[in-house]
Amino acid sequence: MQNFKIIIEYDGSAYHGWQRQPTDRTIQGEIESTLMTMTENRVTLIGSGRTDAGVHAFGQVANFRCNTSLGAEVFQNGLNSLLPEDVVVTSCEAVPEKFHAQYDVKSKTYHYRILNRRLPDAIFRRYAWHIRKKLDLNAMRNALYYIVGRHDFKAFEGSGSPRTSTVRCVMNADFVETDNGYLVLKIEGDGFLKFMVRNIVGTLVDAGLGKITLNDFKRILASKDRNLAGITAPAHGLFLMEVKY
Amino acid sequence: MQNFKIIIEYDGSAYHGWQRQPTDRTIQGEIESTLMTMTENRVTLIGSGRTDAGVHAFGQVANFRCNTSLGAEVFQNGLNSLLPEDVVVTSCEAVPEKFHAQYDVKSKTYHYRILNRRLPDAIFRRYAWHIRKKLDLNAMRNALYYIVGRHDFKAFEGSGSPRTSTVRCVMNADFVETDNGYLVLKIEGDGFLKFMVRNIVGTLVDAGLGKITLNDFKRILASKDRNLAGITAPAHGLFLMEVKY
Repeated sequence: MQNFKIIIEYDGSAYHGWQRQPTDRTIQGEIESTLMTMTENRVTLIGSGRTDAGVHAFGQVANFRCNTSLGAEVFQNGLNSLLPEDVVVTSCEAVPEKFHAQYDVKSKTYHYRILNRRLPDAIFRRYAWHIRKKLDLNAMRNALYYIVGRHDFKAFEGSGSPRTSTVRCVMNADFVETDNGYLVLKIEGDGFLKFMVRNIVGTLVDAGLGKITLNDFKRILASKDRNLAGITAPAHGLFLMEVKY
Repeated sequence: MQNFKIIIEYDGSAYHGWQRQPTDRTIQGEIESTLMTMTENRVTLIGSGRTDAGVHAFGQVANFRCNTSLGAEVFQNGLNSLLPEDVVVTSCEAVPEKFHAQYDVKSKTYHYRILNRRLPDAIFRRYAWHIRKKLDLNAMRNALYYIVGRHDFKAFEGSGSPRTSTVRCVMNADFVETDNGYLVLKIEGDGFLKFMVRNIVGTLVDAGLGKITLNDFKRILASKDRNLAGITAPAHGLFLMEVKY
């Protein structure tokens, strides 16, 4: 039995998220059926976690175990020639059999891209949330720093997600300004609740628009009440950048 | 009668090029029908020139004349709210009535993007030509310098284009390497023949792959024979960046 770890880059625009579904196209579903073609066996792909419909990834990680004589390079090349062009396996390596892409996660880093200027971007419109009104980056950054550390993030959790605890640790978080009006939230945590990054972004944007104060933001986090937080930011601004083990 | 100059950014992926067509979606067609909605008049949009199906633009320029009391800002905002999201009017200004977006062109700058590495790019796959084999950038640059200046570019002309002369002047041309394996050809000329940039790129790639020598490239340009030149590089790597007047 061999165990392979793969790193996957994908454009989530055309997919109903990571997790395999009976009818809709998903990333896990596409890769599993390609692996079945290659190995002539049913292979289960274990992802580091789900990404929602429309979310992109530069560094999603997954592993699969199978009884095969094929090597890592053959798997990588085979997957890349058979997968649709919006899914690319950027790395494939043989790992010890006990490696588990979900249970062994140490941290995940997400980026959320906002385009903050009057004009939309025709060419990269699928990869950022366009907000016309000028955001106060300082206010957003100050609010953001409240979430760094170990907190109960229940106020920022989407409904209907299975989990035992809503406490998570955010190790790093920052907002950076890049060219042409793009703002990028970079956030690293030991785990994220359903919609957590997008709900944090929606609430930070309220702070950036002056709809809530820094104190309001602090109170929302402490309240553990989803109804007090802002909207769920759109999926297409979110990128899973890196998973550490 | 007012005359307006607009600058347009578009993602060409979903369009059959610039020029209005009876049935297929085109950039000119979309903008003209939006102008008709706004002015309740038939308005002709004069582009700086056509772009082929699938070609993108950051800085296409066009003008339209019409009898209207609407101002430039109203046109820009109206167009941007009515046009599909892959077409954005980045500037709109009133200009003297004699301004003609096609006849008055002084120069045009195109970029052609090549992704030169083993792995494709899942997320930006629509905006570069992916070439796996390592290209010799120096060989391509040296060949490129032969086309700078005033030349008869017949060898690089696509068939079936109406024109009186195949002589054009290329003022600037260079290849630059950017991050992550991207190479960008930047070329400025007083005008371009049909498929000229893409045919030049296809032939430069032959030089970069060692299929032809520097001398071959020189001979191809001098031959005025399209059959000797390389393939037409795919449309989706090409961007019309700027039109000067």
